[in-house]
Amino acid sequence: MNLITLNSKYKKNSLEEIIEWLSEDLNKVNKIILDLMSNNLPLITDVSSYIISSGGKRIRPLLTLICSKLCNYSGDRHINLAAVIEFIHTATLLHDDVVDNSKKRRGKKTANFIWDNKSSILVGDYLLSKAFRLLINDGSLKCLDIISQTSTRISQGEVKQLMSTKNFCTSEAQYLEIISYKTAELFSAACRVSAEISEVNEEKKNALNDFGKFLGMAFQIIDDTLDYFPKDNMTGKESGNDLKEGKITLPIIICYKRSNKREKKSLEYLISKENLKKIDFLNTIELMKKYNVEEDCQNKAKHFSIMAKDSLGVFSHSSEKEKITKLTDFLIERNY
Amino acid sequence: MNLITLNSKYKKNSLEEIIEWLSEDLNKVNKIILDLMSNNLPLITDVSSYIISSGGKRIRPLLTLICSKLCNYSGDRHINLAAVIEFIHTATLLHDDVVDNSKKRRGKKTANFIWDNKSSILVGDYLLSKAFRLLINDGSLKCLDIISQTSTRISQGEVKQLMSTKNFCTSEAQYLEIISYKTAELFSAACRVSAEISEVNEEKKNALNDFGKFLGMAFQIIDDTLDYFPKDNMTGKESGNDLKEGKITLPIIICYKRSNKREKKSLEYLISKENLKKIDFLNTIELMKKYNVEEDCQNKAKHFSIMAKDSLGVFSHSSEKEKITKLTDFLIERNY
Repeated sequence: MNLITLNSKYKKNSLEEIIEWLSEDLNKVNKIILDLMSNNLPLITDVSSYIISSGGKRIRPLLTLICSKLCNYSGDRHINLAAVIEFIHTATLLHDDVVDNSKKRRGKKTANFIWDNKSSILVGDYLLSKAFRLLINDGSLKCLDIISQTSTRISQGEVKQLMSTKNFCTSEAQYLEIISYKTAELFSAACRVSAEISEVNEEKKNALNDFGKFLGMAFQIIDDTLDYFPKDNMTGKESGNDLKEGKITLPIIICYKRSNKREKKSLEYLISKENLKKIDFLNTIELMKKYNVEEDCQNKAKHFSIMAKDSLGVFSHSSEKEKITKLTDFLIERNY
Repeated sequence: MNLITLNSKYKKNSLEEIIEWLSEDLNKVNKIILDLMSNNLPLITDVSSYIISSGGKRIRPLLTLICSKLCNYSGDRHINLAAVIEFIHTATLLHDDVVDNSKKRRGKKTANFIWDNKSSILVGDYLLSKAFRLLINDGSLKCLDIISQTSTRISQGEVKQLMSTKNFCTSEAQYLEIISYKTAELFSAACRVSAEISEVNEEKKNALNDFGKFLGMAFQIIDDTLDYFPKDNMTGKESGNDLKEGKITLPIIICYKRSNKREKKSLEYLISKENLKKIDFLNTIELMKKYNVEEDCQNKAKHFSIMAKDSLGVFSHSSEKEKITKLTDFLIERNY
């Protein structure tokens, strides 16, 4: 597992601080993941090790761990549940990359590019089933309910997204629904299960549910904005992928809505093209700059991140809460 | 739902008799399936309705219903569980057709051919998650355990099969392991869950587990044999698909093992070819005839079907048991 290497001369960011703080738990999560991947068919081990270790930020399992701390949870079920969340996330990544026909993710070749689509589909199926196996071992019908609902929603969100491809009729409201399903649900489940095992009151359960949901919305808006406006080229993926794939995300929705007739026509032409050129992308960026799209997207993300933080109002002040707040800010201000 | 239409002038086969006998339960299963498919995103409704109604034999849910009768089960949980089993089966079909790049199944165009691979992947994911949702509503951790284990095994079996593509080193033992995972596990689970909800003793639970497993093995061997030796062209799929796809199934394994050096070389050449011609297939059939492959495969299927029937020895004689025995024979002698 590639955790970010910490260098003492270097000022840590909030994510790195939290990773260090939770390193003991994170190592246990990694151990479960590694154990489940080894002792398996070579293709399953190879593909799943590759994707799991390919440098994701591991935000989702981290949320399960950190929310457990916030709820003063003292058992060890959060470890298993964090691994489940990461497995489900990984399964969706494998299938997403096939659906999007992606060649790169986080600057590394995608599994479907190195192996093939077949392997990615089947190993994705395996990881999803394995996630449910792990979850059943935990034995909580409530957590099963939360996570299976999430898994259904994720695929519905992906289908909604597929149906909106190249379709400028997609509204901002529809976009928000798509990202709520495909991204925010899993963030929400990652936080909610911690509340569930901690047996905090219903109010706190709902608070963590909402926190995860709003954070997920903010996270995805930032992701979609970075695809048009990468910072320091640290996203690891080439920018402009969404436009190339005809994916209708917030920046292009806002840009289109604000465009005049001529600009609208030109955007419609662009999105319908098979092979987008660099200049097409640059022209789109110019148009987005004219309409202040980047800043407005960031503000919309901030709007959700503020709702996320306010959801935690029911928890009294603690160092754990402060860390979660800092993590939330970091995820919105991140440049990768 | 397309159940086989019964015509009074016509002598019913065992499958049709059983479908008539269980029609009340089957209609309830169909209702659950239809309800879950409607009130959904149009693409999900369209793809899943298409594949679920495209004329499968519905053997697996039928097994759950019939085994519940054998166990004198009097509740209604078997209906829900039969729907879960059909959903899981349908999800794997959708992904299989993408992995195999199939254009036809049961004589009808495949979903990935009518829509696209993306839709098949995502709707497959949706159906799998939905199956788990249904199962969680049932509330039995034991059934969840059985079916999630099965779902994991199915994807492992598919991966094993993918790894054996075009590889003549695949042994008969490896083939048996592949079909045990990819097919027999679900047959077994379909029977086993009925025992589970009926609360029969451990011996009967194991008996139904084994019955399903052996029946599944026999069923898949017949399927793989029909791909080379279709009867009355009723399989609905063009024959020779497995050879075209380089899938190493029992008929070709036996044929290869029995071939002389020259014939082996020629089979190796054939399987490595990109575009197989009709004459290549006919030559392979000739070689198989020389080595008595069809009959020997049928005998191997029969071997498993006898084991299946003998597994039921622990159940005393009843009309239900007789029907299951007849169904087993029908599935081995079927010509589609």
